[in-house]
Amino acid sequence: MHIEDLRTSAWRLNQRLKYIAQRGQILEGEYEATVREIIGRIKEEGDKALFEYIKRFDGLELDQDTVEIPYEELEKAYEEIDEETRQALEIAHDRIRRFHERQKENSFFVEEEGVILGMKVQPLERVGVYVPGGKAAYPSTVLMNVVPATVAGVEEVIMITPKPNPYTLAAAFICGVSRVFQVGGAHGVAALAFGTETIPKVDKIVGPGNIYVALAKKLLYGVVDIDMVAGPSEILIISDGSVREDWVAADLLSQAEHDELAGAFLITDKEEHAKKVVKAVYEMLKNLSRKEIAQKSIEKFGTVFLVEDLYQACQVANHIAPEHLEVLTEEPFKLLPYIKHAGAIFLGRYTPEALGDYILGPNHTLPTGGTARFFSPLGVYHFIKRSSVLYVTEEGFRDLSDHTKALAKAEGLEAHWLSVKIREES
Amino acid sequence: MHIEDLRTSAWRLNQRLKYIAQRGQILEGEYEATVREIIGRIKEEGDKALFEYIKRFDGLELDQDTVEIPYEELEKAYEEIDEETRQALEIAHDRIRRFHERQKENSFFVEEEGVILGMKVQPLERVGVYVPGGKAAYPSTVLMNVVPATVAGVEEVIMITPKPNPYTLAAAFICGVSRVFQVGGAHGVAALAFGTETIPKVDKIVGPGNIYVALAKKLLYGVVDIDMVAGPSEILIISDGSVREDWVAADLLSQAEHDELAGAFLITDKEEHAKKVVKAVYEMLKNLSRKEIAQKSIEKFGTVFLVEDLYQACQVANHIAPEHLEVLTEEPFKLLPYIKHAGAIFLGRYTPEALGDYILGPNHTLPTGGTARFFSPLGVYHFIKRSSVLYVTEEGFRDLSDHTKALAKAEGLEAHWLSVKIREES
Repeated sequence: MHIEDLRTSAWRLNQRLKYIAQRGQILEGEYEATVREIIGRIKEEGDKALFEYIKRFDGLELDQDTVEIPYEELEKAYEEIDEETRQALEIAHDRIRRFHERQKENSFFVEEEGVILGMKVQPLERVGVYVPGGKAAYPSTVLMNVVPATVAGVEEVIMITPKPNPYTLAAAFICGVSRVFQVGGAHGVAALAFGTETIPKVDKIVGPGNIYVALAKKLLYGVVDIDMVAGPSEILIISDGSVREDWVAADLLSQAEHDELAGAFLITDKEEHAKKVVKAVYEMLKNLSRKEIAQKSIEKFGTVFLVEDLYQACQVANHIAPEHLEVLTEEPFKLLPYIKHAGAIFLGRYTPEALGDYILGPNHTLPTGGTARFFSPLGVYHFIKRSSVLYVTEEGFRDLSDHTKALAKAEGLEAHWLSVKIREES
Repeated sequence: MHIEDLRTSAWRLNQRLKYIAQRGQILEGEYEATVREIIGRIKEEGDKALFEYIKRFDGLELDQDTVEIPYEELEKAYEEIDEETRQALEIAHDRIRRFHERQKENSFFVEEEGVILGMKVQPLERVGVYVPGGKAAYPSTVLMNVVPATVAGVEEVIMITPKPNPYTLAAAFICGVSRVFQVGGAHGVAALAFGTETIPKVDKIVGPGNIYVALAKKLLYGVVDIDMVAGPSEILIISDGSVREDWVAADLLSQAEHDELAGAFLITDKEEHAKKVVKAVYEMLKNLSRKEIAQKSIEKFGTVFLVEDLYQACQVANHIAPEHLEVLTEEPFKLLPYIKHAGAIFLGRYTPEALGDYILGPNHTLPTGGTARFFSPLGVYHFIKRSSVLYVTEEGFRDLSDHTKALAKAEGLEAHWLSVKIREES
């Protein structure tokens, strides 16, 4: 792990951050032509192109009948997975659901003389959830992406996944996914965006995926809505040295094991503590099953920032705007008012990120790579949309017509002016 | 205007909608290389490239000192515009502000045994508002884009505009814009996204613009957040024949005069009424100052849909998901529960769109081209972001640790498992 001493030279922060930011830089140019072609063909040819791509990329011979995973298989998966995992999934589902219920929004109306104004809040009708196959095929992803949609009231949640496994299917069963299709990649995303003879067209696509999936989502933004533009994930730990070094080290590694490009960062005002954490990280790495991935992440991007005090620690944290922020200090709540930018804030020694990833209830789909400055955790608010409602009586109209005409005149829009004028004359 | 009779052949709706949708199809390929180059140069060279582009595209010799419009000029513009417009702008500002105050969201915390979970809601720190120059330089645009940001609590609102005029500057003064820069185009958008020596970097860019601006915003989505992907605007009127034909016609034209690509659509169950509306449209067109624009829009895209009854009218409206929907019927509230997709819903004969465009209070920046299926009117919710907050006591941790380990094991993430296990042993 690299150590950056900001106590004497705070300007080095930006240099290091610039380096760290590189891991998020997507070589879009390289893939874009391919993804554009896939999108274009799915749009024009529908199923025909879809099944061709499934054959080419996934090596599978699927058709209109076999691309959909029947509901019975979900139920079967649910029954066949081990009791311990099933129970944990049920509890996680219940807790996630309860937390997200709090995010619901209501329509409102306000009245004043001659005018009623309102905002009508409605769920999206149909959404698509992308669940990756391969090394990142996680049942927790299913729960975290589907539950906010169902809580919002979305009628139909379509899940696509290139490689279903019993855990993800069981999770889909638990949270009541409407339909599951065995398809992934940019072709799967495009099929959801335009609809094909077999895949229903959706209004929004959410969920993580590889570079092809991420790029397809970004290119199709506007045709459908998407959740966010996601990059490699990261954890940042603020520590005052009051928490055991091996706990801190384990938390750093729990991020590093995700991805070679994952970022694990520590900010502390205790130099000795920092050294012990680094030592513990390398010690633990030795026996880790995902050692190769975690080691690359730690060596390439792992960073300790030494700061003067916890106030500077918060400043640095805000500058980084991390996806996950752990506050491992004696009095973690004391720092909360100073934290402006972070996807999720884990307070205190008994709140390791892993608890939040799986079971506590808040969403684990979080803004990465500094986008916590402007993006939010996935939530019910991502699955609703609003319409303004306006009603004016004749009296209300007469109170406001002159001002409306004045503004229409200032903007040179005569028909706007006329649509008011003509009503005044009646 | 084209008349489509859906009473006998509803399938023709899709054909016509496909034709109408063409107007929103952006020839991205044509402009994308140019816009990408501009973005790349602004990112690398900052001010140097910025002032070069200002010279090339706007024909202006500006530098670090002259690109910013001093505050005194805003004040001066406010004082110098005519009293009637100034008063109308003040009243509009006040009403917009009051409506948007209702959209504010609060942080929340929930507690249960051993666990505190919360969502911390905070305003974005700095946002950029794009205000077009030329034919679309409207003071109402300034109010509608800035007010939701200031109500949300955004500290700094940076406005850029290639061609300031007294009305837009006065509007900027009224709603308390922080700084105004005279720059536009893709180079202006890129400057806001990356920051230059002179232009401050922002977290989000909102506001309408031409194809270069729209494309730059889309390409920079992820570097910053953006409001929405906007296309040409449209109005759809549901009429039962109870409202005067010339009123209906004026409302259709108030949309058509915006843009040759604007869409003006009427749905009615009264054939005679439809014919009279069409006649009134052509009659009014004759003397309209923006006749050329409005006529092209009406002739190319203007459409009357004849339906069986008002229930079918709502179905068609939902299919179109219009930006503006006027319900000109005897009992407009009766249809409200059937309307699923629309940016703004104007109920009743005394609520022409123009009132909503300027003065009523709800935002006039609305989702276009069918995106009302998933996008919302611009609002306070576009200028805030959320962070999850999680805190667990030792007892709370012990209640949940086994389930967390079970899920970490199922997903094969050993360091996640370890970060829990290690805390159990203490």
